[in-house]
Amino acid sequence: MFDDMWLPQETLRSLMEGRVFHVASSGPEDRTCVRLRTEIIEFLRCPLVGDASQANVLLRIGDTAFDSDEAYTIRRTGDAIVIEGNTSRAVLYGFYAFLRATLTGESVDDVYSAPSQAIRMVDHWDQTDGSVERGYSGASILFGTLGEDTWEDPGNFTVHDRGMDPFRHDRARLVAYARFLASVGLNAVAINNVNVRGLGASLIEHPLIEQVKEVADVFDEFGIATYLSVFFGAPRRLGGLDTSDPLDPRVRAWWAAKADAIYALIPRFGGFLVKADSEGEPGPYQYGRDHADGANMLAEALAPHGGTVIWRAFVYNSSQDWRDRGTDRARAAFDNFKALDGRFAPNVALQVKFGPIDFQNCEPLNTLIGGMERTNVVIEFEITAEYLGHQIDVNYSVPQWIRMINTDTGREPGEEGLAKNVIRAHAVDAGRTGFAAVQNVGMDRNWTGNKLAQANFYGFGRMCWDDELDAGRILDEWIAQTFPVLDGEGRSIVRAIQATSNQTYIDYTAPLGVGFMTVPHYHYGPSVDGYEYDRWGTYHFADRDGVGVDRTQATGTGYTAQYAPALAARYEDVATAPDETLLFFHHVPYTHVLHDGTSVIQHIYDTHFRGVENVRGYVEQWDRLRGRIPDEDFDNVNERLGRQLASAIEWRDQINTFFYRMSGIPDEQGRTIHR
Amino acid sequence: MFDDMWLPQETLRSLMEGRVFHVASSGPEDRTCVRLRTEIIEFLRCPLVGDASQANVLLRIGDTAFDSDEAYTIRRTGDAIVIEGNTSRAVLYGFYAFLRATLTGESVDDVYSAPSQAIRMVDHWDQTDGSVERGYSGASILFGTLGEDTWEDPGNFTVHDRGMDPFRHDRARLVAYARFLASVGLNAVAINNVNVRGLGASLIEHPLIEQVKEVADVFDEFGIATYLSVFFGAPRRLGGLDTSDPLDPRVRAWWAAKADAIYALIPRFGGFLVKADSEGEPGPYQYGRDHADGANMLAEALAPHGGTVIWRAFVYNSSQDWRDRGTDRARAAFDNFKALDGRFAPNVALQVKFGPIDFQNCEPLNTLIGGMERTNVVIEFEITAEYLGHQIDVNYSVPQWIRMINTDTGREPGEEGLAKNVIRAHAVDAGRTGFAAVQNVGMDRNWTGNKLAQANFYGFGRMCWDDELDAGRILDEWIAQTFPVLDGEGRSIVRAIQATSNQTYIDYTAPLGVGFMTVPHYHYGPSVDGYEYDRWGTYHFADRDGVGVDRTQATGTGYTAQYAPALAARYEDVATAPDETLLFFHHVPYTHVLHDGTSVIQHIYDTHFRGVENVRGYVEQWDRLRGRIPDEDFDNVNERLGRQLASAIEWRDQINTFFYRMSGIPDEQGRTIHR
Repeated sequence: MFDDMWLPQETLRSLMEGRVFHVASSGPEDRTCVRLRTEIIEFLRCPLVGDASQANVLLRIGDTAFDSDEAYTIRRTGDAIVIEGNTSRAVLYGFYAFLRATLTGESVDDVYSAPSQAIRMVDHWDQTDGSVERGYSGASILFGTLGEDTWEDPGNFTVHDRGMDPFRHDRARLVAYARFLASVGLNAVAINNVNVRGLGASLIEHPLIEQVKEVADVFDEFGIATYLSVFFGAPRRLGGLDTSDPLDPRVRAWWAAKADAIYALIPRFGGFLVKADSEGEPGPYQYGRDHADGANMLAEALAPHGGTVIWRAFVYNSSQDWRDRGTDRARAAFDNFKALDGRFAPNVALQVKFGPIDFQNCEPLNTLIGGMERTNVVIEFEITAEYLGHQIDVNYSVPQWIRMINTDTGREPGEEGLAKNVIRAHAVDAGRTGFAAVQNVGMDRNWTGNKLAQANFYGFGRMCWDDELDAGRILDEWIAQTFPVLDGEGRSIVRAIQATSNQTYIDYTAPLGVGFMTVPHYHYGPSVDGYEYDRWGTYHFADRDGVGVDRTQATGTGYTAQYAPALAARYEDVATAPDETLLFFHHVPYTHVLHDGTSVIQHIYDTHFRGVENVRGYVEQWDRLRGRIPDEDFDNVNERLGRQLASAIEWRDQINTFFYRMSGIPDEQGRTIHR
Repeated sequence: MFDDMWLPQETLRSLMEGRVFHVASSGPEDRTCVRLRTEIIEFLRCPLVGDASQANVLLRIGDTAFDSDEAYTIRRTGDAIVIEGNTSRAVLYGFYAFLRATLTGESVDDVYSAPSQAIRMVDHWDQTDGSVERGYSGASILFGTLGEDTWEDPGNFTVHDRGMDPFRHDRARLVAYARFLASVGLNAVAINNVNVRGLGASLIEHPLIEQVKEVADVFDEFGIATYLSVFFGAPRRLGGLDTSDPLDPRVRAWWAAKADAIYALIPRFGGFLVKADSEGEPGPYQYGRDHADGANMLAEALAPHGGTVIWRAFVYNSSQDWRDRGTDRARAAFDNFKALDGRFAPNVALQVKFGPIDFQNCEPLNTLIGGMERTNVVIEFEITAEYLGHQIDVNYSVPQWIRMINTDTGREPGEEGLAKNVIRAHAVDAGRTGFAAVQNVGMDRNWTGNKLAQANFYGFGRMCWDDELDAGRILDEWIAQTFPVLDGEGRSIVRAIQATSNQTYIDYTAPLGVGFMTVPHYHYGPSVDGYEYDRWGTYHFADRDGVGVDRTQATGTGYTAQYAPALAARYEDVATAPDETLLFFHHVPYTHVLHDGTSVIQHIYDTHFRGVENVRGYVEQWDRLRGRIPDEDFDNVNERLGRQLASAIEWRDQINTFFYRMSGIPDEQGRTIHR
């Protein structure tokens, strides 16, 4: 029905043979503790005994000396393994870590582990009609009985008129999914799309909230808090008020009542996720208020219950005029939010995309990260491969994410200035910072469309838990758990493909950080000028002489000034700006020489030829796994690689031809560039 | 409910006051004769008397000396007007000509008129779900009760499974529409889209054929033959056969039985319209047969009943590789059909688009016109403004059509070689040649979305009837009938806008015959590179040095060789090739000098600035009509002109910027071109 991802049940059961478990809790057992027991007897099918002396795996929930209620230890005591933590959740994490170690062969003699990030969250862009915005793995696993009717006309009805139940109610799948989340330490999930359409707006109220509770209870078993994306205009749409003005007392009262009712039903409800004043969504601007007003209103409603508002900073002018060279989308988040720094309530977190544009193959760090100095920040990632190959193209993206979180913002001294740390240093409430990502699963049998795309989901969770891990280590873990049948040589094939796949994708798509050049709306496949004369603020400005966006203070949009001085200076100067984002910051001639001595135009040709050759290599390498992994996995990736190769060729040829026609400069190596 | 187009009922009724009609038929009265009586007493509300001596308008159906059964005379005999013809249909045409003359003030003292073209047809690209492919005037007037369900999944059902009735059954609208057709002399209509989807395939059989009959009977009252677009794969899909091979006797028997059943129900049924082996539609190629095999099979089925197969020549490779410079879509129709010349049955007509590509703003003549020497040819036009502004932009296209039909093919001496004549000269059956056009009406109150777009519908009909008319004359007729309330100065405003609108549209869109540069699929608004790397065979090949498609024999695709020698030589030589299609035939540097002394790049700038200024002028001019024509007409065009201006500016700026970035050559006049 669906595959095991990184929790190979049969393998685990056989590896766990001989293990006898005992669970002890110093206080009353909660739902998660019961889940732990269920995992032992149903998932592992191991004996669970009441007498600790008969057990060889002891799970102890209780008062340790750990600072963190999520930290666990795994120790070896004689023949027995002891897993310990303050809470059932902590011990559940330790339990999955023990399973992981069993598959990877890591030592469990003396492990202490606490999560790096407090909020470790996945966002679902699932619609109540069962579709998934930017989903490439089939329909929603959460919703999906109503069909497409709820999407089109959001204004015309509420659930009360229709009496419809949009939930899929596939409990087995939901439990498996929650297990995956918890097994990598994720602790929060937003279950509906931030573009709140149709019935989505009504999830916060009766009768749909009762169905949300059904889902939330499953997540809660695994220690995962459920969030809802809410529609900022709900007081008007659902509440019958004539306004959704965040400073109107009736609006505040309406939201407070909603929050009270939700928490009465779902005590560990996480809170609200909000996309406001963004790409056509309503927001505080339409009432002459600012984003602090908007967020704080919701925060006030949630505060009595300990809930959190996660407020997206993805606010920019999405009706830009391409002729207007003064407006720069990259500037927008900082320009909109920096002035509000310090005004957000302690239970608000600003969710900031890692780059200033939108999850391109290569972006510099978002200037709000570190730039916000008295505000909780959650860094947003996109596991679903919207711009990164739609899970058709193999693209292990964890290396990019790890580079981003380890970028030095220069906003604090030393390590404290790294993106992953600075958000904690600058927080009003460090428990409300962390990482969030748009997830990539759907109803496809292997969850993620492409088997190899599971690694991104896995890697995101692991990176949240331990942000010191490198991408190679995470990859090795994932391979060991996902393909336990493979020998070392087989694993090295998977590793070689995955480890290079992100760079390969960069190679054959938009060069040197310029971004986009993809088919509008769809975002798969090349269209060099696809967004060039459009309203989205994403341009490359290629002409016969050069290419790139001048974002310098000296001659451009001044975006570089949003960085801390050292970083600003580095990006400002074409000589010190890093090559990988050169065209993000500078408009340069095709003959501009990169740090490796290659010209920009030759770099474009070289990388695009190389990218295709790499994919050809993947096709050959993968073929060596035929018969060595399950056929469905082999066939799945094999089929995807075939499509990737075709797409990579198309990217190569369109980009090369476009720039050849523009520049008139031939390839130094005389390879085929179509005229 | 819907407007009067060029038959202003109230005006006509008042002008006809005092007219007393008499109808006399030398033979039994047919349905069209009854319609003539109905038009007199219901449409005009004039007295119809049995005693000819009491009448002052005498309609005489009977044996005249005219060669043509469609020709009519209008004469003045004393105080009376006499309209005469061999058939009721001929007299109906005379009757409408009399109404037209009443509005335009033309003389009716001594008129003889016979149609230029035998087949005068409109094609509906209406789907049985009520949508109209490439329709810009609302939903289908023929279909429209089922909604979108029938479109998506053509393979999964037939009408027998569903018992659905896709027809709109709006008889009043249908009668009005048929009246418009007959009033300009049109005599044939294909009621469903050539891309036969969903229930469309089942229109040829019980139970839907009974509903087709209902529609066909209305058209028949107005002397209009109804055709159906048929699905070439129908024997398999509907007939349960394992093949649709045109040479298979079972397939031939199946079609013959279908034809027999149709004619039993609809004796004056016109025949079948077929798009085969085109843009994904099935056809004879999939059985290793050719288009003569396919068409002749259907012709054989229709021949006993006098029916006609209209077989579209729009066959090309729609999965072309943009890298493949050897394939030229312009060549495709000739390459596919020329070898079949002489093999088509006498009741087959090949329907050939006027240009070799697809109704662009400027194209040379299709080489099959005149190139087919022993085949009936119908020239296809597109009234619906697919590439010509979607009836948002004002675009009176008749001038383009008149230029096309008066193009000298050089395939016969003198006038006989003109496109409009050569098809008759080369016909196997001259009664099966003529003009057809995709029509532009829908459920919009004014039928055509833009009030001014009615003129194209009118003009097409008039051009079919009298191909000696010039576009200005047709326009004047249309204005006089459409805006009888306007004085001469008001009419001159409408005339000035309409008469220049086609050139204005050319000015601000794709230059010098290069075509496309429009948003893929949608075909409204600019996207210079939108089709450049796509599979449709429509490229401009612009690079930093020049632009255009080399279709010469010397260095290009050799397309020019498909023309008769004199024309081929003219197009082959860049010095003699006409400027308006220069980039269709040649790839030239931006500095190439046109016949008027302007360089190509300066021509691009000049025309694009001029085009926008012209539209600004239209906006101002139209405003002078406020209060002088009905408000809904004024407001309708006013609103459209506002959108046209925005679109024209977008075209101007994208084209100018694109070519400036490519060429680096500034505008000689220093006008604003965005970098």
